[in-house]
Amino acid sequence: MNKLTYAVVGTGGLGGYYGGRLAHAGRDVHFLLHSDYEQVKQNGLQVYSVNGDFHLQHPCVYSRTENMPVCDVILICLKTTSNKLLKELLPPLLHQQSLVILLQNGLGVEAELDRLIPGLNLAGGLAFICSWKSAPGVIRHADLGKLSLGSYNLKSERVLEQVCTDFTSSGVPCNLSANLYASRWHKLLWNVPFNGLTVVMNTTTDRLMNHPSSRQLVLDLMLEVVCAARQCGVPLEEKQAYSMVEMTDRMTPYAPSMKLDYDNRRPLEVEAIYSRPIKEAAGAGYAMNAVAMLEKQLRFIQSLM
Amino acid sequence: MNKLTYAVVGTGGLGGYYGGRLAHAGRDVHFLLHSDYEQVKQNGLQVYSVNGDFHLQHPCVYSRTENMPVCDVILICLKTTSNKLLKELLPPLLHQQSLVILLQNGLGVEAELDRLIPGLNLAGGLAFICSWKSAPGVIRHADLGKLSLGSYNLKSERVLEQVCTDFTSSGVPCNLSANLYASRWHKLLWNVPFNGLTVVMNTTTDRLMNHPSSRQLVLDLMLEVVCAARQCGVPLEEKQAYSMVEMTDRMTPYAPSMKLDYDNRRPLEVEAIYSRPIKEAAGAGYAMNAVAMLEKQLRFIQSLM
Repeated sequence: MNKLTYAVVGTGGLGGYYGGRLAHAGRDVHFLLHSDYEQVKQNGLQVYSVNGDFHLQHPCVYSRTENMPVCDVILICLKTTSNKLLKELLPPLLHQQSLVILLQNGLGVEAELDRLIPGLNLAGGLAFICSWKSAPGVIRHADLGKLSLGSYNLKSERVLEQVCTDFTSSGVPCNLSANLYASRWHKLLWNVPFNGLTVVMNTTTDRLMNHPSSRQLVLDLMLEVVCAARQCGVPLEEKQAYSMVEMTDRMTPYAPSMKLDYDNRRPLEVEAIYSRPIKEAAGAGYAMNAVAMLEKQLRFIQSLM
Repeated sequence: MNKLTYAVVGTGGLGGYYGGRLAHAGRDVHFLLHSDYEQVKQNGLQVYSVNGDFHLQHPCVYSRTENMPVCDVILICLKTTSNKLLKELLPPLLHQQSLVILLQNGLGVEAELDRLIPGLNLAGGLAFICSWKSAPGVIRHADLGKLSLGSYNLKSERVLEQVCTDFTSSGVPCNLSANLYASRWHKLLWNVPFNGLTVVMNTTTDRLMNHPSSRQLVLDLMLEVVCAARQCGVPLEEKQAYSMVEMTDRMTPYAPSMKLDYDNRRPLEVEAIYSRPIKEAAGAGYAMNAVAMLEKQLRFIQSLM
């Protein structure tokens, strides 16, 4: 198989790190940038990573997808709140077989894009990573980093497997999920408590872990996600919640993406991470009461931003 | 019956207003002050009230209860978080028949004081009022003002009735509750949502009312209080929650006492307003899940204060 060409749509903490790893390892990667375009064009992309820093001197950067080549793999690294932009952003990047991978949290993002642009080859990805953009063209990667990819509607997983191999050989642990829907619920185990609570209580993951009340609250929310997932046919288990807690105990103190969005007055991913799981569970006959309470708090907070 | 003598323990937004009204109407009122003693001694007590401003030129003020006379009625206007101080503060104020009225929110405050100082004549009071201390010796009363008093262990309600008459004739609407426990649950209908949510979401009552998510959250919490109260044998009804919401709609924008405590880095009344009702309801077989979630958030926030 030929070497895959990659487009990274959204070069922030996620796209800058994962796309940067691929480019650093010699893959053909094309980055779409918005506010940081001039900076990165001039000075390149700097990644400070717990797994080793690197600098891309002359990455292929673009300020509009119209100027980019069509690519084999499109990594969508925008926040879900920007997905409506994809109707305009995506078409210039697509050839007949292009694979679009949504590296995003939450539920229903592939279905939403499928409605927006019918006929795409779609996959999804979950990133277990602590990374963020600390300055224009500067990415910080503080902990973790594993990617989990899964097919949404692919007739063949051949290309997705090659992407997985490309990541792995670029220093990014990557696996293929046999059930993307289940993987999304599994990721929600972490996102639901930590994204929302760090915003509502204006704090970080370690502080939530270190007080018995908030620790219990985190666990309560996780266990509600477990029940909801099971009701939706996904065999999540309670022990997976406990191991998520233990992982967070070992993790570096972190402000999740939603907290960074809040601090920077960007839209919050309430819809994908809260409202859709709540709706999905309700449709399956399960009321996510605690999660719904957190959702209401977030909707209120967002209304004041 | 002789004219009653009053002691006000805690001359803040509550004690300053209610004690001030009694003194302004010519009752014999003795005020205990702490940090504001010198200020009020020199300049008197100023009350700005929607029902008419007034100034007490030379109120009877004290910095220690040891210097105060014994009184017929002791109005406890401290926060419940300071009630352990009463073991030392109260005895100098008591004669054989003294009536101690706890003008405090939450559940179980009389029982707690009864354990601390056995043998007291105890009553409780609920204040539906928007008032606060805006500066040393300056009280602001912005809205409402009704008092509801009820016996905890009184053999006779004669003195309590006289207190009620004294308040009414001093311009404070006052009624006697036949069931103090029920009155406390009824007051929790308001305190549970608004005290906690204004702290956790750093906002005011009007903003909570004006967004559909937070408005729903307020109502959800109220309805949980209704269910808990009913399970505890108190016939609260849903329509009382709805009329509490309507009252708040008409109310001036307000930061409840817990929000003022939070802003001023004082202890929060989590125990009396949240933990005890939760425990009481649990004992009666009802889980206050939403209220317990808010309690956990408050415990966490308090741990960072």
